Amino acid sequence: MRILIPGGDGYLGWPQALYLSGKGHDVLILDNLQRRHFDLAQNFASLIPIYPLQERIAAWKEISGRQIQFCIGDVTDYEVISRIFREFQPEAVVHFAEQRSAPYSMIDRRHAVFTQTNNIVGTLNILYAIKDFSPDCHLVKLGTMGEYGTPNIDIEEGFIEIHHKGRSDVLPYPKQPGSMYHLSKTHDSHNIMFCCKVWGLRATDLNQGIVYGVETDETVLDPRLATRFDYDQIYGTALNRFCVQAAAAYPLTIYGQGQQTRGYLNVRDTIRCIELALLSPPREGEYRVFNQITEQFSLIQLATMVAEQGKRAGLDIQIAHFANPRVEAEQHYYNATHRRLLELGLEPHLLSGAVLDSLINLAVRHRERIDRSLILPTVNWRETTNEVTRRES
Amino acid sequence: MRILIPGGDGYLGWPQALYLSGKGHDVLILDNLQRRHFDLAQNFASLIPIYPLQERIAAWKEISGRQIQFCIGDVTDYEVISRIFREFQPEAVVHFAEQRSAPYSMIDRRHAVFTQTNNIVGTLNILYAIKDFSPDCHLVKLGTMGEYGTPNIDIEEGFIEIHHKGRSDVLPYPKQPGSMYHLSKTHDSHNIMFCCKVWGLRATDLNQGIVYGVETDETVLDPRLATRFDYDQIYGTALNRFCVQAAAAYPLTIYGQGQQTRGYLNVRDTIRCIELALLSPPREGEYRVFNQITEQFSLIQLATMVAEQGKRAGLDIQIAHFANPRVEAEQHYYNATHRRLLELGLEPHLLSGAVLDSLINLAVRHRERIDRSLILPTVNWRETTNEVTRRES
Repeated sequence: MRILIPGGDGYLGWPQALYLSGKGHDVLILDNLQRRHFDLAQNFASLIPIYPLQERIAAWKEISGRQIQFCIGDVTDYEVISRIFREFQPEAVVHFAEQRSAPYSMIDRRHAVFTQTNNIVGTLNILYAIKDFSPDCHLVKLGTMGEYGTPNIDIEEGFIEIHHKGRSDVLPYPKQPGSMYHLSKTHDSHNIMFCCKVWGLRATDLNQGIVYGVETDETVLDPRLATRFDYDQIYGTALNRFCVQAAAAYPLTIYGQGQQTRGYLNVRDTIRCIELALLSPPREGEYRVFNQITEQFSLIQLATMVAEQGKRAGLDIQIAHFANPRVEAEQHYYNATHRRLLELGLEPHLLSGAVLDSLINLAVRHRERIDRSLILPTVNWRETTNEVTRRES
Repeated sequence: MRILIPGGDGYLGWPQALYLSGKGHDVLILDNLQRRHFDLAQNFASLIPIYPLQERIAAWKEISGRQIQFCIGDVTDYEVISRIFREFQPEAVVHFAEQRSAPYSMIDRRHAVFTQTNNIVGTLNILYAIKDFSPDCHLVKLGTMGEYGTPNIDIEEGFIEIHHKGRSDVLPYPKQPGSMYHLSKTHDSHNIMFCCKVWGLRATDLNQGIVYGVETDETVLDPRLATRFDYDQIYGTALNRFCVQAAAAYPLTIYGQGQQTRGYLNVRDTIRCIELALLSPPREGEYRVFNQITEQFSLIQLATMVAEQGKRAGLDIQIAHFANPRVEAEQHYYNATHRRLLELGLEPHLLSGAVLDSLINLAVRHRERIDRSLILPTVNWRETTNEVTRRES
């Protein structure tokens, strides 16, 4: 299958590209290197060293014998997208090329506007390119479980049957996104659903949970194939960050009460889920939504698991509650359905002690690279100017 | 009350500005004249002649003794918005400054991207300006009933109580918008709801039906105070267009089967609804949604009413079905709740024979200005290039 991967140089895009290339697919990465630029501008860095895209691709060729193509360009530029569609004629697009940090989107007005316009325009461009050049192409779009917020009823997969005043309908599941970033994904979802309806496009919208881990069968083959491991306040997600804090003898920072519950999954499952979606594409005109999670945990549960595992490894671990920089419910019901990927054949890698141990060990091995000044949150949801603003042009 | 009206030079913004100024409020219009620019570029025109903004304002001063302030500027430019907030310190914003045509948004990719970025960025700018400069300011935002689509259950006002698997919650009403324009309003709604939650802003989101009529107590005082009357394929809405077709002995063009049912209201009710919202502002942090309609009709019902009324006036009127340029259900359930504005005191002007007669008469009086080439739709929802594209740079 010819698969275009916008955002294929990122945390998840890169292992996805490796995996699909390894399965014999013809992969083309499109990336504007925006995530690397942020690191340069802010002096942030991945805990694990990552190599330039060209070196990654060369290493993969050397090791696997397979060629990944790439293009440095921006999905918001329709000339770039349309040229790639004409020349490469993708049969599927796995679209990771979005600004993907909630704190980034809440830095200030400029970052909010960038997040929403970048994400919306990029996705619209891909939808129009599919319609114009390759109408059977399957769009696999990375959404987020954060689109749903924390409703007091079970979260279903994209749609819900509603009974109301003696009538009923199956309608899009109501969305209560919790940041300018999560809002952008909600906007995307509505746009994609519409294009499937009016143009008969095929799309899978993956409402993904919080991904942890960096090791896949491919990324471990050579240090040059590593993907990034973010632990900073802008891009670091809860479990990865806790493991780094454990390694650095830094208290595990829980925002607020810590009963915030979310869906999680291992990076190995992310890439397998996307393969499963690609292998069973939707019908013409079908917009389908999968909740891409395997388990759910509260922050307290995660921190406790990391602390216990770390102690076994001889680390001295404290848990500290920190004033919540976000505006969110800290005590809430949460039960998210996630059946459809299991039905397609997903066999989850659950969060075992061994997995935690390997993540903590990874952080310990790279301990000297931890910049403690990057950990504590400075972006407060209640403010419209934040420290990062002043450091970035 | 100091009231900022972005989009105050448009079809509804202008009579709104007059009405609120007439009630003694201090009104400032912000408008980028984009709607007038489209007419210039495409050689479209309002059926009723409209005067330049400066002449409108001078005439109003002459007639009423009241001064409306204005600024030619764009809500997507934060420098403009923030300067106005600092200097004028609005207590309310009535936000009309959006690209408001569904066919326009479906012309091609460029018009879709413009519609969504223009509308989203403008509204985000206003939200940030309120938060930064005037946090108690009440945002009254023009949304559309088209955000809901045509679900098979009753449409409620913004939120719906859902019972699901033994639990329940009141959640945002699911949205199924039917064009890139309607999508942009759905995106706005989610953004506004979020800003009320995280920053404690106060907002009223008016999901407005299709407005008809051009005469208010103020616009009829002088020809220079008239508001625009659009009958063209891009900006003309169903009832206004039918009346012009009746006057021009042009068949009333029904798209598809004609059972498409929507909510409607008189322009007099629009301006009163907004006053009612302004007089009873929401609590701090409250995001409320009113369905701003007074009646609902199918296209067939409307066309039949116009034909009957026109025949009484001696006009020869045909009804013709036209291949539907839109992708929409042509037979569907439709029942939209609209109680909250009635509870605030709205006394609807219903669509009587007299109202229809006055609309048809207006069209007959300006018959010589009707450009028949503007009537038939050329923008097809199923295509991504359309005739208008080729005529506009």
